[in-house]
Amino acid sequence: MFTESYSLTATEVIAKIRDGELTVEQYATSLLTRIQERDPIVKAWVYIHPEQVLAEARRLDSVPMEERGPLHGVAVAVKDVIYTKDMPTQFNSPLYQGDAPQVDAASIIILRKAGALILGKTTTTEFAATTQGPPTTNPHDSSRTPGGSSSGSGAVVGDFQAPIALGTQTGGSTIRPASFNGIYGFKPTWNSISREGQKIFSIINDTLGFYARSVEDLDLLADVFALEDDEPPNPNFRLQGAKIAISKTMVWPQAGYGLVDAMIRAIELLRAEGATVDEIEFPDSLQELPNWYNIIFNSDGRTAFLPEYRVDKTRIADQLVGHVENRKKITRAAQVKAFDDIAAARPVVDGMLAQYDAVLTPSVPDEAPEGIESTGSAAFCQIWTVLHVPVLNIPGFVGFNGMPIGLSLVAPRYHDRKLLSVGREVGKLFEESGGWR
Amino acid sequence: MFTESYSLTATEVIAKIRDGELTVEQYATSLLTRIQERDPIVKAWVYIHPEQVLAEARRLDSVPMEERGPLHGVAVAVKDVIYTKDMPTQFNSPLYQGDAPQVDAASIIILRKAGALILGKTTTTEFAATTQGPPTTNPHDSSRTPGGSSSGSGAVVGDFQAPIALGTQTGGSTIRPASFNGIYGFKPTWNSISREGQKIFSIINDTLGFYARSVEDLDLLADVFALEDDEPPNPNFRLQGAKIAISKTMVWPQAGYGLVDAMIRAIELLRAEGATVDEIEFPDSLQELPNWYNIIFNSDGRTAFLPEYRVDKTRIADQLVGHVENRKKITRAAQVKAFDDIAAARPVVDGMLAQYDAVLTPSVPDEAPEGIESTGSAAFCQIWTVLHVPVLNIPGFVGFNGMPIGLSLVAPRYHDRKLLSVGREVGKLFEESGGWR
Repeated sequence: MFTESYSLTATEVIAKIRDGELTVEQYATSLLTRIQERDPIVKAWVYIHPEQVLAEARRLDSVPMEERGPLHGVAVAVKDVIYTKDMPTQFNSPLYQGDAPQVDAASIIILRKAGALILGKTTTTEFAATTQGPPTTNPHDSSRTPGGSSSGSGAVVGDFQAPIALGTQTGGSTIRPASFNGIYGFKPTWNSISREGQKIFSIINDTLGFYARSVEDLDLLADVFALEDDEPPNPNFRLQGAKIAISKTMVWPQAGYGLVDAMIRAIELLRAEGATVDEIEFPDSLQELPNWYNIIFNSDGRTAFLPEYRVDKTRIADQLVGHVENRKKITRAAQVKAFDDIAAARPVVDGMLAQYDAVLTPSVPDEAPEGIESTGSAAFCQIWTVLHVPVLNIPGFVGFNGMPIGLSLVAPRYHDRKLLSVGREVGKLFEESGGWR
Repeated sequence: MFTESYSLTATEVIAKIRDGELTVEQYATSLLTRIQERDPIVKAWVYIHPEQVLAEARRLDSVPMEERGPLHGVAVAVKDVIYTKDMPTQFNSPLYQGDAPQVDAASIIILRKAGALILGKTTTTEFAATTQGPPTTNPHDSSRTPGGSSSGSGAVVGDFQAPIALGTQTGGSTIRPASFNGIYGFKPTWNSISREGQKIFSIINDTLGFYARSVEDLDLLADVFALEDDEPPNPNFRLQGAKIAISKTMVWPQAGYGLVDAMIRAIELLRAEGATVDEIEFPDSLQELPNWYNIIFNSDGRTAFLPEYRVDKTRIADQLVGHVENRKKITRAAQVKAFDDIAAARPVVDGMLAQYDAVLTPSVPDEAPEGIESTGSAAFCQIWTVLHVPVLNIPGFVGFNGMPIGLSLVAPRYHDRKLLSVGREVGKLFEESGGWR
């Protein structure tokens, strides 16, 4: 029993530890065994130190019951762009090799206080800002990418090496790996969680994200991180009679067969459950959203990577050098126009989304592509990121190569809890009937 | 001569060091002597270690000429909410007493690479997020506040304990101390400089700021931090024929006699130089800007201080507890509406400002108030901060108690260099004829 506890969700682990059926140490041992077995193939960790994990597990076991937090003993993997005071933070950058600044990010402070067991640091693309993959492979097919930039965090949750992992998203860095690894990925409303201690790429986009294998686990994290809607979600939400919309978005020409098939299946399944499914479209005035996004993240990179550029521009990715040197020759006028146009779009899109219980939209163009050099396309995610809305990747579908495909649910800003509530029902349906595993 | 080098501007110091008239060590010694003499009264430092400063000065002296950066030897004081890897960063919070994460903020990386000499850490209000003053006094009258939250940084530049200091601004935390201490304070366009490694309060407002005693010094910093307008400013800008506007703003009912007098004098002086001076007003649709600002910073505090609240809410200021607990009961709907309304205001205000060479507006309601318990009102600054425009406090005027009063110049977003170019001429005029010192 103990030896298989690695496969439990966070919610299950919490119950077993609370009921005295499992110690944190036993649980950690099970995870470490799983990791030891699988790491040579998946290669998702940049830092994990079994003795450190076990020592922390024993410390947690010694905490009196009445002082335990809501995540007591839950193992969490941390993307290596988020500071952890007892581990290095290296950003997949030679400039930061071995760097260990002895500070916890805001998210880590909150997690530790809630009793989480920080396992170690997971792979990322360089500064979570490129699509050049780390050595990590997709746990479901090691010839394919796990996605990025939260490559390791997505892979370890998909591979039962951790029940929960932290990612970040500036374009599609949380949602894309969630889809590729067949797990839940949740990007909350922008700035609803402090991003302190997390590498900056584009301030107006960067968001902390969570991976889990159940919506219950994400709800637990939403409690711990104090995500609160104006109105609590309907606890009795059911798909029967629900109003769902589909948004293919202006990026739809990039859809592959696997995605098209998943969307068709999703619509059929939702309708079979008694939901109405409408298709909605972005107004003509917002068709430039992907271009505005591109202008913003390039301009923000000009600011974000100046320090590393000054320290040694030969040791950062050429793409980042391009940001700092403004190779795309984006004027300040174009930059503020894109910033303002997107700002004006946010309430418009919130209004569109608010008409429905949730809106279903692609996470990625298709299954995880072959090869690990590129982490794939974030095109479907970027527009939602810059609109600041919460996004939930729901696994369940399967592509033509047998790899998972997820679809996203989105909701207006600060409707995070409503999104999870709808996501729980949609998730049950897609997991049961979507064909993945 | 060496012994008085503490009083030089950065531009002057650079020339003397380059020409071999001064070593960094001699310069540092002069500053340390000044600091030793004045610190018992001004109390602006939370961390300064003379041996550490001198060792770093000697290291800089040993750098070969051809490897020296543009700020070689320039001493910089750093507000204690900005990470410095060889010094503690304590945020004026008991929770972080003695905390010393070994990491440099983005601004510090850039400054060190440019050859700056980091002197030490200066006082701040708690997390730069309250108006409860640290023990620092105004160098021009120790019964008065130096302002805040960048209290120590403003005071040390005003008191010739450092030529340059870093501040931050979420409301008026850079500009207000600049006015109270009789120095230049520059808040560049939001996100034009990376805020990595600087405590987060309100992401959409927080901005790194600079203090100096000349516009030349700020121009030098603008070079080092790669602030670039679309068009370089006119190097031959003169006040003769210039188009200046005055914006009293909707906060004007808070103006004290000292401010009113300074504004009248400023208009007279500018007109006497041959500038046209028009008065402009915010449209009716933007009169709620101060309320929108209040909604935003309160809501952002809800996110920003959750980690400290969770660690120990009894050891953070009650005001911050109030942010986290949302005591003002700001709904998410109100929060996003304020966020969106302000976003819509930005291009409108840019358009207003773009009609002029620069727009003159109050920095503060009046001279530095008596007492050091409160750091004063940021009301005049907040609206410009949330609009993201660059702001330059220009010293020169004097209040009825003999204390300095500055006025701000503002320009559209990403017209930072133009603002400095106009500020140089306006500064000369106000410094010569405004009555301060």
